[in-house]
Amino acid sequence: MQKNPLLEKEKIIEVAANLFGEKSYAGTSVRDISNALDVSIATIYYYFKNKEDLLFNIIESSGKDLLLNINKAIEEHSNPEERLRNMLIRHVCLTKEKKNKVKVYVEEQHHLSKRFKNIIYKQHRKIYDAYIDQLKELQKLKLIHADSLPIVAFAIFGMVNWCYRWYREDGTVAIEDVAKRLIDLFFYGVLNTATQPVPNQSRGK
Amino acid sequence: MQKNPLLEKEKIIEVAANLFGEKSYAGTSVRDISNALDVSIATIYYYFKNKEDLLFNIIESSGKDLLLNINKAIEEHSNPEERLRNMLIRHVCLTKEKKNKVKVYVEEQHHLSKRFKNIIYKQHRKIYDAYIDQLKELQKLKLIHADSLPIVAFAIFGMVNWCYRWYREDGTVAIEDVAKRLIDLFFYGVLNTATQPVPNQSRGK
Repeated sequence: MQKNPLLEKEKIIEVAANLFGEKSYAGTSVRDISNALDVSIATIYYYFKNKEDLLFNIIESSGKDLLLNINKAIEEHSNPEERLRNMLIRHVCLTKEKKNKVKVYVEEQHHLSKRFKNIIYKQHRKIYDAYIDQLKELQKLKLIHADSLPIVAFAIFGMVNWCYRWYREDGTVAIEDVAKRLIDLFFYGVLNTATQPVPNQSRGK
Repeated sequence: MQKNPLLEKEKIIEVAANLFGEKSYAGTSVRDISNALDVSIATIYYYFKNKEDLLFNIIESSGKDLLLNINKAIEEHSNPEERLRNMLIRHVCLTKEKKNKVKVYVEEQHHLSKRFKNIIYKQHRKIYDAYIDQLKELQKLKLIHADSLPIVAFAIFGMVNWCYRWYREDGTVAIEDVAKRLIDLFFYGVLNTATQPVPNQSRGK
């Protein structure tokens, strides 16, 4: 293990996320984690109060990864459409890079106590707000049509957060190509332009 | 409890799904389920071998609900676009009607043993194939453009299966309106038509 405490903590989070992802939270003991890292159980408890604290740190770290990537996309692009596109590319790519963290976030969050859930909720609110802000920007420029931006944002989260369940790293499609296709679907829809009615007619309340 | 064995089994599945949805699979005992139903534990074990068997039955029943609804949509509509639209409406509405079953399906499936997982996988394959068949039909008629139908199908599953996490029954939006907006997004995308490039130019490989 790393001797730097910050790196050591990060390493425990990564290894625990992989074990929780592979064997589930309930199916993994702190002993399993210490064995996988070849450290004493005391080392784990030096950084984390208990298994739930570790789960919280994995989920919080997953949110941090995403916020960091979203903010980079925002900094790097000034064109709002390009910005949203890049937020989505980075978001989709994370579901491959951090597959087990995403899986733990989706499937194991219910094990957290209310106090931890509230902290995670606030973090997710930041992610949600970042998407809503970009969608509002595009709406202001009349580049998008949507009568409910929250539903659009939740559609994004659903499409992207589902990727870890079906994307195969050993398959033939690169994750960047998956991102491209999901973005095309999100921006243009699947129906052919020729068959698409005028938005005002098609998009009744 | 109902005296009809089939109805009694169904009732146990419904009540257990609600408890697993509210308190999680790990946080619910067979005793909790028997208490909620006001029956003996022996009654539960008469129908189900153990808690895992009950979980399997909930998830399988969730898949049956969806397949039943998908098949109804297929029977009731001959126009392929209308058919897909109605498959999606029914699918979205189920995430409200059977919220806890959907939650258990998404979050608790990893507790199943390999044998049960394989049966569920085959059932999901039928659902996936039903969507792929409809998408192929639309593709044959040149009504949709997509260079990967599997990615389109997984985008649908993500968007729809995510609804249980954010849709509030006590909110102001009816589930049918959520379905309508998600279908609009899926069919037409969010970008305004005026800004949409010709499909062949926009949808590079």
